[in-house]
Amino acid sequence: MVAEGLGTGLLVAVVVGSGIAAARLSPGDVGLQLLENAFATGLGLAVLIVMLGPVSGAHFNPVVSAVDWWLGRRTGDGLAPQELVAYVAAQIVGGVAGAVLANLMYGGRAVSWSTTDRSAGHLYLGEVVATAGLVLLIFALAASGRARLAPVSVGAYIGSAYWFTSSTSFANPAVTVGRAFSDTFAGIAPHSVPGFVAFQIIGAIVGIGLLALLYPGAGRAAGNVTTPHTETTTAGASS
Amino acid sequence: MVAEGLGTGLLVAVVVGSGIAAARLSPGDVGLQLLENAFATGLGLAVLIVMLGPVSGAHFNPVVSAVDWWLGRRTGDGLAPQELVAYVAAQIVGGVAGAVLANLMYGGRAVSWSTTDRSAGHLYLGEVVATAGLVLLIFALAASGRARLAPVSVGAYIGSAYWFTSSTSFANPAVTVGRAFSDTFAGIAPHSVPGFVAFQIIGAIVGIGLLALLYPGAGRAAGNVTTPHTETTTAGASS
Amino acid sequence: MVAEGLGTGLLVAVVVGSGIAAARLSPGDVGLQLLENAFATGLGLAVLIVMLGPVSGAHFNPVVSAVDWWLGRRTGDGLAPQELVAYVAAQIVGGVAGAVLANLMYGGRAVSWSTTDRSAGHLYLGEVVATAGLVLLIFALAASGRARLAPVSVGAYIGSAYWFTSSTSFANPAVTVGRAFSDTFAGIAPHSVPGFVAFQIIGAIVGIGLLALLYPGAGRAAGNVTTPHTETTTAGASS
Amino acid sequence: MVAEGLGTGLLVAVVVGSGIAAARLSPGDVGLQLLENAFATGLGLAVLIVMLGPVSGAHFNPVVSAVDWWLGRRTGDGLAPQELVAYVAAQIVGGVAGAVLANLMYGGRAVSWSTTDRSAGHLYLGEVVATAGLVLLIFALAASGRARLAPVSVGAYIGSAYWFTSSTSFANPAVTVGRAFSDTFAGIAPHSVPGFVAFQIIGAIVGIGLLALLYPGAGRAAGNVTTPHTETTTAGASS
Repeated sequence: MVAEGLGTGLLVAVVVGSGIAAARLSPGDVGLQLLENAFATGLGLAVLIVMLGPVSGAHFNPVVSAVDWWLGRRTGDGLAPQELVAYVAAQIVGGVAGAVLANLMYGGRAVSWSTTDRSAGHLYLGEVVATAGLVLLIFALAASGRARLAPVSVGAYIGSAYWFTSSTSFANPAVTVGRAFSDTFAGIAPHSVPGFVAFQIIGAIVGIGLLALLYPGAGRAAGNVTTPHTETTTAGASS
Repeated sequence: MVAEGLGTGLLVAVVVGSGIAAARLSPGDVGLQLLENAFATGLGLAVLIVMLGPVSGAHFNPVVSAVDWWLGRRTGDGLAPQELVAYVAAQIVGGVAGAVLANLMYGGRAVSWSTTDRSAGHLYLGEVVATAGLVLLIFALAASGRARLAPVSVGAYIGSAYWFTSSTSFANPAVTVGRAFSDTFAGIAPHSVPGFVAFQIIGAIVGIGLLALLYPGAGRAAGNVTTPHTETTTAGASS
Repeated sequence: MVAEGLGTGLLVAVVVGSGIAAARLSPGDVGLQLLENAFATGLGLAVLIVMLGPVSGAHFNPVVSAVDWWLGRRTGDGLAPQELVAYVAAQIVGGVAGAVLANLMYGGRAVSWSTTDRSAGHLYLGEVVATAGLVLLIFALAASGRARLAPVSVGAYIGSAYWFTSSTSFANPAVTVGRAFSDTFAGIAPHSVPGFVAFQIIGAIVGIGLLALLYPGAGRAAGNVTTPHTETTTAGASS
Repeated sequence: MVAEGLGTGLLVAVVVGSGIAAARLSPGDVGLQLLENAFATGLGLAVLIVMLGPVSGAHFNPVVSAVDWWLGRRTGDGLAPQELVAYVAAQIVGGVAGAVLANLMYGGRAVSWSTTDRSAGHLYLGEVVATAGLVLLIFALAASGRARLAPVSVGAYIGSAYWFTSSTSFANPAVTVGRAFSDTFAGIAPHSVPGFVAFQIIGAIVGIGLLALLYPGAGRAAGNVTTPHTETTTAGASS
C-alpha cells in the first residue's frame, strides 16, 4: 500500500510537474509542450514500475487493480476485495499528494483547483480507447507470461496514447483525481472528473471483453501474475 | 483474424490520430508535427506488436503476410493461401475502421476523403526503400532466430523511416488504404493510393531479393517463425 | 578510479556540451533546449553506465558511492571508507575536467564561471525529490537482483527528472561542482553549489529511508551488488 | 562485404535523408533540425546493426574495422589484412551510394558536392572525443561479453553524441566521405573531409589507449567477438 501510494503520487508528480515545466518553457507551441510532457511521462512511468513492481505489482491505477480483482475472483489469485479497497484508497491519496508535491516543487500554492474543462463526447471516446488499450496490454502480457515487459510497454503505450487519443489518455481514475488539484497544463476541472472516470470504467470493460476474445485463458493467468506477491518473482524480477 | 484487424485498426488510429493532434497543436512547424507523429507511431507500433504478437503474429501489413506466404510456400510453414486472403481482408477492413475511429476521437465526421496528393517519382522511390527495408528487417530477425526483437526493431525502424524516406514511409498497403479515409495530416488522396501500393509491392520484391542474398536460409526459417501458431512461442513469448 | 573519473567527466561533458549546442541552435525556445539536453543526457548516461559499469560499478556520483558505503558498512560488502574517499575525489576531478572539455569542444575558454543563480526553496525541494528517487531506484534494482537494468533505468529516470523536478534534477554533487565551471545553459553559479549539494544529501537520506521501508533487505543486497568487483558479473555483465 | 556496403549505404541514406527532411520541414530552428536528425539516426543505426549484424558484424565504419584488425592481429581472431581492405572499400562505396540514394529520394540530383565548411580546432576536438568514445564503447562491450547490447548502445551513443560534441559526431570516415556528396543539412565540403578523417583516426588511437587501460584483456576478446563469423552467434544472435 505504501508502494501504491508512493508510486501513484510520483506518477502524478511526473505528469503535473513536467506539464508545468513544459508550459512555462515552451509557451509558444502547445504541441511541443505535449511532446515534452509525453517524453517525461513515458520514461517516468516505466521507471516507477521498475522501481516499485517487486513491492506491490506497480498498478498505480484503480482500474488495473479492479480488473485484477475481477479476473482473479474465481481462482482467488487476484486481489482480495479488501485488498482492492486498500489499493484504490492508497492510489487516490497518493495521486492527490503527488499533485501537491508538483505544485510545491514549482513554487506554487499546495492546491489550486484546475479550471481546464474536459468534457465532450469525442474526449470520452478517447478515454474509452485509451483505457481499453491499457487493460488489454497489461493483462495480455500477464496471460502470455511476459510481465517482465510491462515497464517498457506501459511507458511506451502512454507516451504514444498522449498523442493518438483526443483526451491525451488519462486512463487512470486516481491520476484523474490528482490532476484536479493543479491549475496547470495537465489539470482537469473537478466537474470534468466524474465523466472521465465513468468512461475509463467503460473502457476497462471493453478491455476485458477484448481480452476474453483474444486471450481466453487470461482470467486464470492474470490472477496468478498480478498479485503483489507473485509480481516479486515475475514482473518485478525481470522488468 | 480479429487480432490482425484490431491491430491494423489501432495502428491506423495511432498514425492518423497522432497526426491530427500534431497538426492542431503545432501549427507553425511541419517538422515538429512529423516528429510528434513519428514519436507516437514508433512507440505505438512496438506496443501493438507486443500486445497482439502471440495471437496472430502481428503482421498488420498485407505485404508482410504475402512475403510470409511466399517464403513458406514450399515447406508449408508460412501462411496458407486462404489464410493470406483472410489476413489481408482483415487488415484492410481494420485499417479503414482505424481511420474512422481516429476521425471520431477528434470530433470529426466518420469519413473525410483525403485531399493530400502523394504522387511523384521520388516519393515512389521512398516507398520502395521503406518497404524493402521493412521486409528485410522482419525476415532477417526470423531467419536468425531473433523474432523476440521484432517489436522494438520494427517500431524503431518506422520511427526512423518516417524521416529518412521522402514518402514518410507508409510501407503498408492496408494502412495506405485506411489513411485515404481521413483528410488530415497523415492522409493520402484516394487517387494516390494505387501508386503507393504498387511501389510497396516492388519494395517487397527488392526486400526478398536482399534477403536471399544475405540470409540464404530465410525461406525455411521465416516460414517456420511467422505463422501465428509459432509466434506464440517465439516472437510473442519474448517480444 | 580512472573509470569513475572518466565516466563522471564524460557525463558532465554530455550535460554541458549538449546544453551549449541546444542554447546555440534553438535560441527561441528554452523548453526545446531542455528537451534536447534531456534527450542527449538520458541516452549518454545510459551508454556511460554500459561502457564503464564492469570496471568501477559506474557510480559517477558521490551520493551513490556514499550510500553504497553506508548500506554495506556492516557486512563489509560496500565501498570501504578509503575507497569512498578515492571515488569521490575522482568523481569531482572528473566532473571539473568534463566541463573544461565541453567548453573547449565548443570553442570557448577552458573555464568560465557560471553566473546562473539557482537558489530558491522550491528548487531545493526539487533536488530532494530528484536525489531521493535516484537513490531509491539504484538500490531497489540492487536489492531485487536487477542491476542489469540500471543503465536504461537510470538514463530514463534522469531524462524524465530533467522535466518533472523544478531544479532540472542535478542530483549529483560532482556534476554540480563541474557545472559551475561553464557559464552556459547547464551551468550553476558557484555560490549556488553548496545549497544544491546540501539538499542532495538530504534527498539521499530520504531515499535511504524509503528504501528501508520498501526493501528491508536492501542493506545486505546493495552492499553485495554495488562494489566494483561484483558489478563485473552482475550490473556490468548484463547491463 | 555486401552487408557492409549495404549497411553503410543505408546509414548514410538515413543520416542525409533525415537531414534533408529536417531542414525542409523545420526551417525556423536548426536545433529542432538536429533533434530530428539525431532521433532518426539513433533509431536507424540501431536497426541496421540488428538487421545486418549476423552477416558481417555490422561495422559500417573503417575505424571500427581497423581497430578490430589491430586488436586481433596477434591472435589472428580479428579481421585479416585483406579482409580489412575489402571491408573499408565496401564501406566507402556504400557510403557514397547512400548519399546518392538520399539525394534521389528527395528529388535532387544524384550528386551535389557539399559546400558546408567544417574545419576548426574545436570541431576536430569534437571528432576525437566522438571517435574515442565509440571505439571504447564497441570494444568494451566485446571485451565484457556483452556484444548483444551493441545495437541499442551504439544507436544511443550516436544520438547523444550528435548533441554533446561540437562536430555533431561524424566519427566514421566512410560516412564522412559519403556526406560530401550531398549539399544538404548533413553535408561536409570535400576540402573538410581529410581533416575530419585524420582526427577520427587520432580519436581511434585514444580509444585504444583507454581500452588498454580499462579493459586490459580487450585485445584477445575483441578479436574473438568482432569477426563476422562469431558475430552470428554473439552480437548478432542477441542484438
